[in-house]
Amino acid sequence: MMGDVRFAKGHGTGNDFVILPDPDDRRPLTPAVVAALCDRRRGVGGDGVLRVVRRDGGWFMDYWNADGSLAEMCGNGARVYARYLVAAGLADPGRIRIGTRAGTVTAMVTDDAVSVDMGGRPRPYGEGAATVTGATYRGTAVDCGNPHLVCPVDGAALNDMDLSRPPRVDPDLFPHGANVEFVAPVSEGHVRMRVHERGVGETLSCGTGACAAAAVALRDAGRPTGAVTVDVPGGRLTVTLDKDTCWLTGPAVIVATGAVDLAGLTNLDPV
Amino acid sequence: MMGDVRFAKGHGTGNDFVILPDPDDRRPLTPAVVAALCDRRRGVGGDGVLRVVRRDGGWFMDYWNADGSLAEMCGNGARVYARYLVAAGLADPGRIRIGTRAGTVTAMVTDDAVSVDMGGRPRPYGEGAATVTGATYRGTAVDCGNPHLVCPVDGAALNDMDLSRPPRVDPDLFPHGANVEFVAPVSEGHVRMRVHERGVGETLSCGTGACAAAAVALRDAGRPTGAVTVDVPGGRLTVTLDKDTCWLTGPAVIVATGAVDLAGLTNLDPV
Repeated sequence: MMGDVRFAKGHGTGNDFVILPDPDDRRPLTPAVVAALCDRRRGVGGDGVLRVVRRDGGWFMDYWNADGSLAEMCGNGARVYARYLVAAGLADPGRIRIGTRAGTVTAMVTDDAVSVDMGGRPRPYGEGAATVTGATYRGTAVDCGNPHLVCPVDGAALNDMDLSRPPRVDPDLFPHGANVEFVAPVSEGHVRMRVHERGVGETLSCGTGACAAAAVALRDAGRPTGAVTVDVPGGRLTVTLDKDTCWLTGPAVIVATGAVDLAGLTNLDPV
Repeated sequence: MMGDVRFAKGHGTGNDFVILPDPDDRRPLTPAVVAALCDRRRGVGGDGVLRVVRRDGGWFMDYWNADGSLAEMCGNGARVYARYLVAAGLADPGRIRIGTRAGTVTAMVTDDAVSVDMGGRPRPYGEGAATVTGATYRGTAVDCGNPHLVCPVDGAALNDMDLSRPPRVDPDLFPHGANVEFVAPVSEGHVRMRVHERGVGETLSCGTGACAAAAVALRDAGRPTGAVTVDVPGGRLTVTLDKDTCWLTGPAVIVATGAVDLAGLTNLDPV
């Protein structure tokens, strides 16, 4: 009566997900079900849904955004997914391969952290600017599969900035908009970041944004490879760039498990 | 490992609560635990916590706001609490008495709806005005235990209004601020309402706000008692005023049940 479909809720640095174990692929999702599950007041609440499906002898991450749209990959989502596999006894800690719509990704799970191979290095490709409440900040355009603009600011400006409205960016450089990261130095190899995600708003964390910020920090330090600590409002991430790829590392936790009344949710008929 | 404390999640017209069954009163809450549970990304997420404790042969509602402050009563919270008692087999449907810090309240539970006796009639006591993005709306001050200003508007204005910032109200009339309801007529005995809750922002529903709006609608219609349908963004409420009191009626549902890792939550150490 109070729930028929098993779920878990987890987050990585404040990026949160509804996890639906469905090993035998019996409950394909629909946009309406995803949106109802992710509704923060009338559902379980989350930035997206991770359906856990067995495929080709491993595990496939069927990832959906909260609005019911399909997404190929999500760095923090993959980290939470890998944590769930281990916590639920579906995979052993250590190296885990996860199928996604963007191909197979590799995760590393330890007690304290989960790392995920983002499948390539962030690629800086130009200079641009973002305008926020009348002030303009110059920055570097970075391609992480999705478009970013990384703007250096000082610590006081980072604290005071009002990101309640989308920063304006150059439509020639970013015809489909951009995620905008504002990044202040802390010490060598350590930055603080706030991010405005395209179509979402300011968020507690953004995995690809952290990777973009780290790539710019390393470039500016004249280092082709290395590790950068990136503090985001939701916690602490570490980004490691090697010659070929980029690893995103940080905490990923399962907060709760239970059963959700899916039929009750989708019957919701808001006035 | 993935949860040790039982919980349920439920809502009434979009006002949502984390419910903690604790019949033997073994787990008193603290503000930090309440805030961690109500965190929408790193916890379970809710507008408040309802702890379910057996007391004096009945049930006591230990209600807390999401910010960890104590509250005496909450109309939608009491409705969700009563629904939980019945869904969990702790009470039979029909009339249920619930202990609160504001005294005993009576709820009526049926399959489709839960009503709660708000413990008195809303009391209109003056005229005031609210200013929103430069426009000023006159309205009626109403005491429902907490202060309200009910402002009549037309339907188009209601749809277009920007309530992302708090409406300004007269500090002489409302020394501690007010909840502000904007109310448009639909038909006789039927209104639509949007509400800005003091200290919270625009919400999907406000039980006392619906009662205040209904009291003004009945007064304006020259009817001392009667029922008013109040559509809020989160659903449909019905408010019934009799000679002595006010009943708030509407859907209340339990969405999910499970177990939450309380220790993991409260160990959260945001950077």
